[in-house]
This record gives sequence, C-alpha cells and structure tokens, in this order.
Amino acid sequence: MSTVHHPAKAEIELPAVLHALSDPHRLQIVRVLDECDDARRCGSFGLTVTKSTATHHFRVLREAGVITQVEDGTARLNRLRRADLDERFPGLLDAILAAAQPAEPLAPVI
Amino acid sequence: MSTVHHPAKAEIELPAVLHALSDPHRLQIVRVLDECDDARRCGSFGLTVTKSTATHHFRVLREAGVITQVEDGTARLNRLRRADLDERFPGLLDAILAAAQPAEPLAPVI
Repeated sequence: MSTVHHPAKAEIELPAVLHALSDPHRLQIVRVLDECDDARRCGSFGLTVTKSTATHHFRVLREAGVITQVEDGTARLNRLRRADLDERFPGLLDAILAAAQPAEPLAPVI
Repeated sequence: MSTVHHPAKAEIELPAVLHALSDPHRLQIVRVLDECDDARRCGSFGLTVTKSTATHHFRVLREAGVITQVEDGTARLNRLRRADLDERFPGLLDAILAAAQPAEPLAPVI
C-alpha cells in the first residue's frame, strides 16, 4: 500500500499542474504514461537523469495531482490521473500533449 | 521603441510557456490581456503584488514568448502574443484559459 500523499481530485490546482508539466523530463514521463494503460515503474521511462532527480520529478507530478504512485515492493508504480485531469480541466492535457509532440518526425514518412 | 528581448515565434518553447503560466498572477495577466484587444500598461492589471514582483512576472511572460512589451515613455505596454501562441501550439492557450476560469461564478445567475 502506498502511504505517500495524493491530492484529491477537487484539490488539483491549475498552476501546480502547469508547473509540473513545465519540465521536459516530466513531460516525457506523462507522454509515456499516456501511451500505456498500465502502471509503470520509475526506472522504465528512459530518463537521462540521476535516480534522485528522477525521484524528484515523480514527486512533483504526484503532488500536483498528475500521477498516482503506489508502492510495489521496493519500487513505485506510476499511473497517469487522466480521468481526474480531464474532469477537472477538460481538454487541457490533450492540448499540452499535442503541443509536446515534436514539430517534425525524427524520420520522414515515405 | 522597445529594446527588450522577445523570442521569435519558432523559438517559443512549451516548457517555458507552461512555466510562465504556472503562477496565478501571471495567469491573471494573460486572462486580462486576452479579454482586451489593446495593449495595456503594467499598472493596469489590478495585481496585489509589489511593483518589482509585477515587473518580474511580466519579464517571465515576455521571455517565454507569451507577451510582447513595448516601451511607451516611462511605461511598458503589454500585449498577448495570441496569434504566435495559437500557431505554435494550437488549442493550448484556449485550454489553459478555460481551465483558469473559476469553477463556479462568484454570484449565482438567477
């Protein structure tokens, strides 16, 4: 069981969500979580940062109400709070994730 | 003429925009600018912060590419870069401004 704090849906505040998503690594975490339905361990996101920095990023996302974290043995499983965010701020997450897409694909589509 | 730096449209980055909008006072500035077509002086936003703090907020918005600032005598005129932001990140500003609306009106509509 997780003992870490998660804000209730009604407590999720726009400035905190925008701050949480204002970092490229945290945006990457959210994009990965949005593309998979399952919860993911913190080590599975391909982040190019130290473990302590990654832990900080996950905490910022959790405290802003963007993700949930549940302890699973010695790891933490992360899940996007998509339904809560969509209900609280309709269209916001979609607009941010669309804006976070690269302007051009890495490889041209032939 | 203004000599302060403004990023070109192509240089506007999502993390910087989200960071700029992650503060309630800066969100208020953008909401006011979005509701008026004219440029506005820094002192006309009803901010409850010191002048130096307000100056900081306007600078963060300008450096992120959210507003332009043009000197007008001893004042600065601020204008929302609505067209640039809409072209760079379609739907993003609308989604954020919609999310920034109060969940309930201050006075009930009868």
